[in-house]
Amino acid sequence: MKFNNGFFCSFVLPSFLVLGFFQESVHGRPLLMSPARPRPDNAAAFARWLVSQSSWGVLNTISSDWGGAPFGNVVSFSDGLPDKGKGIPYFYLTALDPTASNALKDQRSSFTISEYNLGTCGKKDPENPTCAKITLVGKLKLLEGTSKEAEFAQTALFTKHPEMKGWPKSHNFQVFKLEIENIFMINWFGGPKPLTVEQYLHAKMDKQTLIADATA
Amino acid sequence: MKFNNGFFCSFVLPSFLVLGFFQESVHGRPLLMSPARPRPDNAAAFARWLVSQSSWGVLNTISSDWGGAPFGNVVSFSDGLPDKGKGIPYFYLTALDPTASNALKDQRSSFTISEYNLGTCGKKDPENPTCAKITLVGKLKLLEGTSKEAEFAQTALFTKHPEMKGWPKSHNFQVFKLEIENIFMINWFGGPKPLTVEQYLHAKMDKQTLIADATA
Repeated sequence: MKFNNGFFCSFVLPSFLVLGFFQESVHGRPLLMSPARPRPDNAAAFARWLVSQSSWGVLNTISSDWGGAPFGNVVSFSDGLPDKGKGIPYFYLTALDPTASNALKDQRSSFTISEYNLGTCGKKDPENPTCAKITLVGKLKLLEGTSKEAEFAQTALFTKHPEMKGWPKSHNFQVFKLEIENIFMINWFGGPKPLTVEQYLHAKMDKQTLIADATA
Repeated sequence: MKFNNGFFCSFVLPSFLVLGFFQESVHGRPLLMSPARPRPDNAAAFARWLVSQSSWGVLNTISSDWGGAPFGNVVSFSDGLPDKGKGIPYFYLTALDPTASNALKDQRSSFTISEYNLGTCGKKDPENPTCAKITLVGKLKLLEGTSKEAEFAQTALFTKHPEMKGWPKSHNFQVFKLEIENIFMINWFGGPKPLTVEQYLHAKMDKQTLIADATA
């Protein structure tokens, strides 16, 4: 990527990165409640945290109705059970909606999330590079209704978005996944973080790694 | 559009639509503080309210680097001075960033906003049709730096996003606008609201209209 945004190069690790991690303590021993914001320079863990903690984003497809324009649409998603995300975003879409309809004709897609939604950006501007944003670029694919992955995805979606269970059967909602091919993430000064799909999908998200990360 | 989402057809006008409008009263006379959420069936005013009250969204372009994929990017924007928006979104972008770089090669674009950001969706799911979303589809164009419109846009941007004044001159940030050609908005059950660009740009946003709207 050509983006090389090196402005404001001071680096102060805010104390909330450390303090926010331990949400309770028992007899002085920290008790991990839920994954806290990883260090920005741990790109893979940070990206997985941002995706896992978010509940919605903008899903982009190529519009067959509007001359091939890139068409963004607000959608809910899940990448797993709460705090147990696997990094792959799943969606519950109907072909009555242009996003699913577009994807069935042209799978090229991207999915964009802002940290601003999580309330962890304080008073920063939403475009401030330290208020993170991620775009996962890839192919939006319909899952086989009877597959193990579709079953996992539907459980993940319905757990995070209980309303989905009541969406009308007549609309034939189906599970889609974004098969990720490239990752664009900015979470600090200096431009997009180098991050491969392999690194992202296999990020260490266990408690020990994250505690070490938060206290480093 | 093919989207025809008619689920949950009950219609109960929540009282907060009316009550929320009058943020203070003086001797029983309502005092208008800032534009409140218009009625969902006043599509033009609703769309203008949503755009005007929002500070960021996802700007989508065609990625020249990633095989023509639709590329969404989190950006700040403004459509005018606070509570005086004109409906046209302006952006402050650098060609070091892929979004501006893409647009300079292919102007096809869209800009997507969720009402969820405004905190007026209560406990609804972000994809609940009554939690509004809008996508403005059109062409992303660089403004002439010396034009009256660029001057208006820069004032609008810097007022809403004071941080922008300090963005590094070496990055050559420039003002872009989305020239709107089509509008996709869902703010209630029953699918996207029919809304032309003409209706949107000329929506009556004066206090009298909005008071009548809120108390209807």
